[in-house]
Amino acid sequence: MAGRSRIWTEVDFAAPGKQVSYLHLPYSVTRSAYGTIAIPVAVIAKGEGPTVLLMAGNHGDEYEGQVTLTKLIRKLEPDDVRGRVIVLPAANLPAALAGARVSPLDGGNLNRSFPGDPDGGPTAQIAHYIDSVLLPMCSVWLDLHSGGSSLDYIPFASIHLSGDPALDERALQALRAFGSPLSMVWAFFDEPRMATGSAHKHKLVYIGSELGGTGSVNPEGVRVCEEGVIRCLAHMGVLQNQAKFAVPAAPRIRLTELAGREYYVYAPDAGLFEPACRLGDTVREGQIAGHVHFVDDPAREAVPVYFRRDGLLVCKRHFGRCERGDCLAHLCTDYGG
Amino acid sequence: MAGRSRIWTEVDFAAPGKQVSYLHLPYSVTRSAYGTIAIPVAVIAKGEGPTVLLMAGNHGDEYEGQVTLTKLIRKLEPDDVRGRVIVLPAANLPAALAGARVSPLDGGNLNRSFPGDPDGGPTAQIAHYIDSVLLPMCSVWLDLHSGGSSLDYIPFASIHLSGDPALDERALQALRAFGSPLSMVWAFFDEPRMATGSAHKHKLVYIGSELGGTGSVNPEGVRVCEEGVIRCLAHMGVLQNQAKFAVPAAPRIRLTELAGREYYVYAPDAGLFEPACRLGDTVREGQIAGHVHFVDDPAREAVPVYFRRDGLLVCKRHFGRCERGDCLAHLCTDYGG
Amino acid sequence: MAGRSRIWTEVDFAAPGKQVSYLHLPYSVTRSAYGTIAIPVAVIAKGEGPTVLLMAGNHGDEYEGQVTLTKLIRKLEPDDVRGRVIVLPAANLPAALAGARVSPLDGGNLNRSFPGDPDGGPTAQIAHYIDSVLLPMCSVWLDLHSGGSSLDYIPFASIHLSGDPALDERALQALRAFGSPLSMVWAFFDEPRMATGSAHKHKLVYIGSELGGTGSVNPEGVRVCEEGVIRCLAHMGVLQNQAKFAVPAAPRIRLTELAGREYYVYAPDAGLFEPACRLGDTVREGQIAGHVHFVDDPAREAVPVYFRRDGLLVCKRHFGRCERGDCLAHLCTDYGG
Amino acid sequence: MAGRSRIWTEVDFAAPGKQVSYLHLPYSVTRSAYGTIAIPVAVIAKGEGPTVLLMAGNHGDEYEGQVTLTKLIRKLEPDDVRGRVIVLPAANLPAALAGARVSPLDGGNLNRSFPGDPDGGPTAQIAHYIDSVLLPMCSVWLDLHSGGSSLDYIPFASIHLSGDPALDERALQALRAFGSPLSMVWAFFDEPRMATGSAHKHKLVYIGSELGGTGSVNPEGVRVCEEGVIRCLAHMGVLQNQAKFAVPAAPRIRLTELAGREYYVYAPDAGLFEPACRLGDTVREGQIAGHVHFVDDPAREAVPVYFRRDGLLVCKRHFGRCERGDCLAHLCTDYGG
Amino acid sequence: MAGRSRIWTEVDFAAPGKQVSYLHLPYSVTRSAYGTIAIPVAVIAKGEGPTVLLMAGNHGDEYEGQVTLTKLIRKLEPDDVRGRVIVLPAANLPAALAGARVSPLDGGNLNRSFPGDPDGGPTAQIAHYIDSVLLPMCSVWLDLHSGGSSLDYIPFASIHLSGDPALDERALQALRAFGSPLSMVWAFFDEPRMATGSAHKHKLVYIGSELGGTGSVNPEGVRVCEEGVIRCLAHMGVLQNQAKFAVPAAPRIRLTELAGREYYVYAPDAGLFEPACRLGDTVREGQIAGHVHFVDDPAREAVPVYFRRDGLLVCKRHFGRCERGDCLAHLCTDYGG
Amino acid sequence: MAGRSRIWTEVDFAAPGKQVSYLHLPYSVTRSAYGTIAIPVAVIAKGEGPTVLLMAGNHGDEYEGQVTLTKLIRKLEPDDVRGRVIVLPAANLPAALAGARVSPLDGGNLNRSFPGDPDGGPTAQIAHYIDSVLLPMCSVWLDLHSGGSSLDYIPFASIHLSGDPALDERALQALRAFGSPLSMVWAFFDEPRMATGSAHKHKLVYIGSELGGTGSVNPEGVRVCEEGVIRCLAHMGVLQNQAKFAVPAAPRIRLTELAGREYYVYAPDAGLFEPACRLGDTVREGQIAGHVHFVDDPAREAVPVYFRRDGLLVCKRHFGRCERGDCLAHLCTDYGG
Repeated sequence: MAGRSRIWTEVDFAAPGKQVSYLHLPYSVTRSAYGTIAIPVAVIAKGEGPTVLLMAGNHGDEYEGQVTLTKLIRKLEPDDVRGRVIVLPAANLPAALAGARVSPLDGGNLNRSFPGDPDGGPTAQIAHYIDSVLLPMCSVWLDLHSGGSSLDYIPFASIHLSGDPALDERALQALRAFGSPLSMVWAFFDEPRMATGSAHKHKLVYIGSELGGTGSVNPEGVRVCEEGVIRCLAHMGVLQNQAKFAVPAAPRIRLTELAGREYYVYAPDAGLFEPACRLGDTVREGQIAGHVHFVDDPAREAVPVYFRRDGLLVCKRHFGRCERGDCLAHLCTDYGG
Repeated sequence: MAGRSRIWTEVDFAAPGKQVSYLHLPYSVTRSAYGTIAIPVAVIAKGEGPTVLLMAGNHGDEYEGQVTLTKLIRKLEPDDVRGRVIVLPAANLPAALAGARVSPLDGGNLNRSFPGDPDGGPTAQIAHYIDSVLLPMCSVWLDLHSGGSSLDYIPFASIHLSGDPALDERALQALRAFGSPLSMVWAFFDEPRMATGSAHKHKLVYIGSELGGTGSVNPEGVRVCEEGVIRCLAHMGVLQNQAKFAVPAAPRIRLTELAGREYYVYAPDAGLFEPACRLGDTVREGQIAGHVHFVDDPAREAVPVYFRRDGLLVCKRHFGRCERGDCLAHLCTDYGG
Repeated sequence: MAGRSRIWTEVDFAAPGKQVSYLHLPYSVTRSAYGTIAIPVAVIAKGEGPTVLLMAGNHGDEYEGQVTLTKLIRKLEPDDVRGRVIVLPAANLPAALAGARVSPLDGGNLNRSFPGDPDGGPTAQIAHYIDSVLLPMCSVWLDLHSGGSSLDYIPFASIHLSGDPALDERALQALRAFGSPLSMVWAFFDEPRMATGSAHKHKLVYIGSELGGTGSVNPEGVRVCEEGVIRCLAHMGVLQNQAKFAVPAAPRIRLTELAGREYYVYAPDAGLFEPACRLGDTVREGQIAGHVHFVDDPAREAVPVYFRRDGLLVCKRHFGRCERGDCLAHLCTDYGG
Repeated sequence: MAGRSRIWTEVDFAAPGKQVSYLHLPYSVTRSAYGTIAIPVAVIAKGEGPTVLLMAGNHGDEYEGQVTLTKLIRKLEPDDVRGRVIVLPAANLPAALAGARVSPLDGGNLNRSFPGDPDGGPTAQIAHYIDSVLLPMCSVWLDLHSGGSSLDYIPFASIHLSGDPALDERALQALRAFGSPLSMVWAFFDEPRMATGSAHKHKLVYIGSELGGTGSVNPEGVRVCEEGVIRCLAHMGVLQNQAKFAVPAAPRIRLTELAGREYYVYAPDAGLFEPACRLGDTVREGQIAGHVHFVDDPAREAVPVYFRRDGLLVCKRHFGRCERGDCLAHLCTDYGG
Repeated sequence: MAGRSRIWTEVDFAAPGKQVSYLHLPYSVTRSAYGTIAIPVAVIAKGEGPTVLLMAGNHGDEYEGQVTLTKLIRKLEPDDVRGRVIVLPAANLPAALAGARVSPLDGGNLNRSFPGDPDGGPTAQIAHYIDSVLLPMCSVWLDLHSGGSSLDYIPFASIHLSGDPALDERALQALRAFGSPLSMVWAFFDEPRMATGSAHKHKLVYIGSELGGTGSVNPEGVRVCEEGVIRCLAHMGVLQNQAKFAVPAAPRIRLTELAGREYYVYAPDAGLFEPACRLGDTVREGQIAGHVHFVDDPAREAVPVYFRRDGLLVCKRHFGRCERGDCLAHLCTDYGG
Repeated sequence: MAGRSRIWTEVDFAAPGKQVSYLHLPYSVTRSAYGTIAIPVAVIAKGEGPTVLLMAGNHGDEYEGQVTLTKLIRKLEPDDVRGRVIVLPAANLPAALAGARVSPLDGGNLNRSFPGDPDGGPTAQIAHYIDSVLLPMCSVWLDLHSGGSSLDYIPFASIHLSGDPALDERALQALRAFGSPLSMVWAFFDEPRMATGSAHKHKLVYIGSELGGTGSVNPEGVRVCEEGVIRCLAHMGVLQNQAKFAVPAAPRIRLTELAGREYYVYAPDAGLFEPACRLGDTVREGQIAGHVHFVDDPAREAVPVYFRRDGLLVCKRHFGRCERGDCLAHLCTDYGG
């Protein structure tokens, strides 16, 4: 786990100007003995200033960030920048091209793969390159997620509590600058292999998001994302030419949190889930979240599903079919509320 | 194509009362030499009256009708009925359990398989059974579709023009009885193997629908469906006990049509489609419908996509990724407008 | 369905002597543009006499016949024969090599493919060759089945009632000559595409069998098969040199029948089936055949399964896991009883 | 390999009473971003006493233990217990539902995955949870195996020699209490990643078994298993109410061993294996175990296979087809004999 | 088999000028309910004259024709033409994009699918469109094949004997005009579903080819193809502006034939084939063509393979591994020789 | 990563004489619970002398070495040897039987798996066995590669610079003894997990090769290989009886090198690659290597590809289709030139 990345690139991260090129991840298989996976990367740099990593496609089926960054690469010029912007519009490229959360090459979920492994599969190698090559250059990381194929979200940006109050305070300021009307603080999470774990290890300000979902492109989410990225770059002092991007000032945000496992609702059986609530509803503990129906056995009673605490319904499962143990919904509550 | 179905059932279609059971489709494979596919069926009958076939799961990933009919089977009792209601809540059961448009067993799209084949794969056998056994018993068929995984629709019920004015007039009356606020007349279609072809051959009133889509359960679509089915059964004289179902009177509907290939918009290239419009927008010929982006090649210009006529945007592609030739959207216009 | 087979062979069916060679079925795919599937065939002939087709591997995972015929090809010599013996030890070769009921090339179940199609997939082409080329040469066909991967049988040979009393009488005599201690008359079946359908069309004596099953080689079934084949060839007058094969005289057989759908028991739900009876048990209508357990939901009650009539338990499902609609068992009763 | 398990449960292992619930293994994939695999677990506890782990479904296609434990969960009540019984009726749940030895999710063989890895695939995570969370609570582990799809066994319970004479003596007493008429001591094995390795590391009494096989439910094996589990719980002092379970006293067992690689017979070529012996036969070194036949090349001589030492035939390959290197059979000899 | 094609296009085949567009084959699947397969087509027309269909990608892994026609579409202008040229550069587009002989959608081999079926899979629908829509417009068809992934050929153009001497004579003149130094007359073939069958039915001059193979682009084959297509168009009177294409005059060709099954050599066993001859060798009946080696069983003797007649080695199997029944080589002899 | 291999064999590496047998790699899966992968191995030894490991099938689709060693095993006898020759003719057997670079069992590329892992998949276990069991016995390793399915090479033998001048000098002498007319020194490589890494760690003379490619058996490459192996064994003093093998003296070789990433050319886009040069051409920096064509979009301009330095074209991509990032070609230059 301690080796050097075999990913190479013709990009010179130290050079000023605009470069749009590829990271080459060697992938030696039957159809291509000396093949590489060509992961798009752009660097736009000028003068002294911080380095910000803008990234989408951590999960391949989360599109609002991919749209935002693909357009930004064509629009952002060195004269717009003080410092450096590194853009990975489709970090787990094989997943992005497959429209899938995980890579079709190795089944890898990039956001469960940090800090990565230079000797692992492509997904672990991408995580390792980000962690060992890119993050040491950066002070801020915007990792633009959505709900993916299986979840639907009210769009928001978010931070994860790091245990370092100073870092969390800087992240919170960046989150306010991003300015998604609803914003989230993840106060409960149980997975050290997410990107946020690498960010906190490197003491980076890490902004995440859930900008829609359902495997579709949510135009409202794209708007929230485009404005938030520009405002965040300006907040960091990296964007010099904000007028060019014509973005309104950040609105006052509603800051919420997810603070425990009881915010989540899980499927008690496999079947067809009919939700009883909609995104944005305020719900109560014990309220019915929906029913699991058995279309192959219509004589069998549907199984009701209940919320386990009060809260705002911010996320629900998108697909009609569920398996036992699937997350069907989760709530949030006002931060510090 | 002229044999007898090998599908058998313990249901007695001529018996009064309520039967909830299965159609058994023989499927002899390695894991089960004498296996059958057990397709749920219910019959609720009492006295003299017409026979109505209620069917969902023609496409397995269209759920509003499946939810409606699974619930109706548990609620509808013989005393509620004059005549007979036959219910197939998951007609292409293997597709329904897979959450897929087509059957995982043979790749079959049931709505491209009529009039079916008793010697074909499971999907063709189901079509053949419906066409040769069930339809001859019926005078009305409600075939409850939605947009499926790949499309999003404003919910509506619909009829297809049959070329028989008297039949079309009866269908139109049934459509008004169903009462979806937006309703559709398919005046252009080019596929004789759809269910509607068998319905017209048998001179049945055939009501179709698109009650949502995206591979999810749309609660608004479920409501439109549940109310429409009850009103339609009452309109046919089959439902005796409408008060039990507490359904409001049918609203005045907006009747629209799709009358040519130019109502559709197709993807000019493969990539990530960002729509520029939303369902319900009124659009003009030549207006931009969206752009295809190339996240693997961000230096390449996005490709714009245009509407080819004026109309109401009633359907759009759901998935972010598209292939060249995918339908990205379609319009409708006021019927007779 | 009316063309000529494209299968070719270097075997000369009209020549005396012993030929062990192949039928070549053209199969043009990416890995082999001019490839053929080489299906083993042997012909052993001398002088005037009837032609018998000995065949195994109709289903690839039924092995007792394959073992018997592979050994017989090496042992049987022209001097042992008056007339002609054609041997197909692995008729659906791709299925036999895969150890599967159906062909891995096209999913085809050869015993649901008669009379075949020269333009169909490999399985339909094999059926067509047998029906259009081999059967017209023959007067008797031994088609040696077992229960396959999914079923376990008490070994027996069998005939299917043809509707032609004279033909059925000749078949019954051959069945007695085969001499499996338990023997079966199929008085109920509902599938015209089985081998027996082609046999009856050509007015051939057709002997089937179920010589074991479970996807294994049953040594007792091999013995019953080896002795039965030799005795049957002698009965037909084709075997001249019976002493070489040292087979005991046929025992008195117990002749049973399967005469209706109620002889079968089907799974009422998917789960893990624990049988309550064993092969050879005599059971009563209403007796418990076993239970379906839900190991993923141990709080749920097991579902009992009942026999639907009296009889001898001659066949049971082998695999522990079942799907709703799978055949779990079937009975037989004394013929004419 | 040193992290903490991400598997969580609402079960309170410290609470008295009966809990039937799930272990939730987070599994984030395209079809379910926040999905979990819900592995059934039950805890029945009352008062002071030892903790016994009862487990089946280590391999998914070994069913006798799954049937036994699923039934026991419904029958065993806190008043029957002194101490604690933890039951995992389907430890590798995805494999159990697939009816496969290995998990369909990651190909993992749970019994080659100990001590597991909290960052590995689902199978490695299950092994890690058992090793790091469950085993430290326990003093006895019954891990109920059968031969699986590919092997057929005379049913027996077994122990593995640990190198710790005191532990082995306690295990031997438990084995005698279990009371399978044939019992086995594994004196030769070469795989440290089996469950037994974790058991010995934790100084647990570990009872294994081979209660049948062939991918079927063996009723005799179920009986041996049900009686053995009850007697073993009573022997441990955990079962208080043995009369409720009406189990006969343990018979005198025949104790055998497998003491070297020469007890095994391997396939010398790929083909169709016809065995020459049956389970329970006593065989001699050099005796023919069977033949490999070539049904695709009937002109080729069959290849004989020989036993490599004397012994009792306790295990044979079930499937007809074999590959070179497959184990075709193994023997045992009297323990200490 | 007698319906109308559902393939539609915006191309107006009757219009003069140059159109580069798509045939849309409706393909309704889970990922795209209203999807179409967009098969590229070009029409370049001016004035009166014959219509020639230029087609490549009948098999997707045959590339020389695809390269030639893709380039020609960009280069050929209406002023270069008298009459009409219809170009299908990738007729079985899904196969072409997969680099496979057969379609990944339905396994279909387009050149075994004529005259096609409008209700069949995509491959059968393409064949039907060509046969029922395109061929009736044409008098000449150039169907540009190579050996595909599995075969290597000395490049040549070819005709198939039609049984109509006048048509064959016109074809022979076209073949001489094409001018591949080696040319072939197929005097033996046994497959009515090839393109040539439809061509002969429509009384078209049909020129085939084998311009290389091995799944690669053979630059020599591309040159032969580019020159031959131009010369053939000129010979037909369709090309007006031959100077623009700067092609040398046709050389004198060596005309050969394949006249029987004994020209072919088939693999007698599965293994690794080491050829003993090279393309262009003149060989004798009984000469060794190569050996099949068994790398998994090196103690086993290699199996020799023999030529079955004299001839010129014009085609050999490319892949090292073979299955029994694969074509390993074929010969040709001088036409009329 | 530090355990002991579970691979076992009946071969006695210390015994004189000739043994042709198997390495047994335990592989416990659903189809064979106690299965092993039987990897062929031969040992031919007599008297005192060095040990040479001859290996092919590191990549399964590289055949010249497999042919050479399979034949050598049958021909080489103990009296021909002083010392010991260990032969692995198909080291990654599952890949060799699949005709693939990587193993079908675990996707493993053996030449990216060193030093291996006894707890990993089959490929990692093979690497570990070679590294931990075989290499410590050896002083020389011939690892016979070709270009595989995706690449075509001018045949050559090669060494990799180790950083140890004395070892490199011994390797260079062995390379000259091998005597391939073109020979290569790999002065640039960036992958420590190749076989060469293990060889250098053990201070072995390691000879590699690229003896053809394209997934075919190149007869010229077989000749180069057979002669080179014999000359190399003689050079090492292991071959006593060189006359028996009738090999000419080594020619004077042209010694070339690959010294940097700019020797390689990568695909700038996905499509159909038409090369503009042939193997053996001398090319210049900036010269066109070929074009990527878009057969699905013939209106789009082809994309040219350029060489990035001067050199000899020694390797080109074989398959017509390419993905962005595939290696399309690489060059070499005269060593020290």
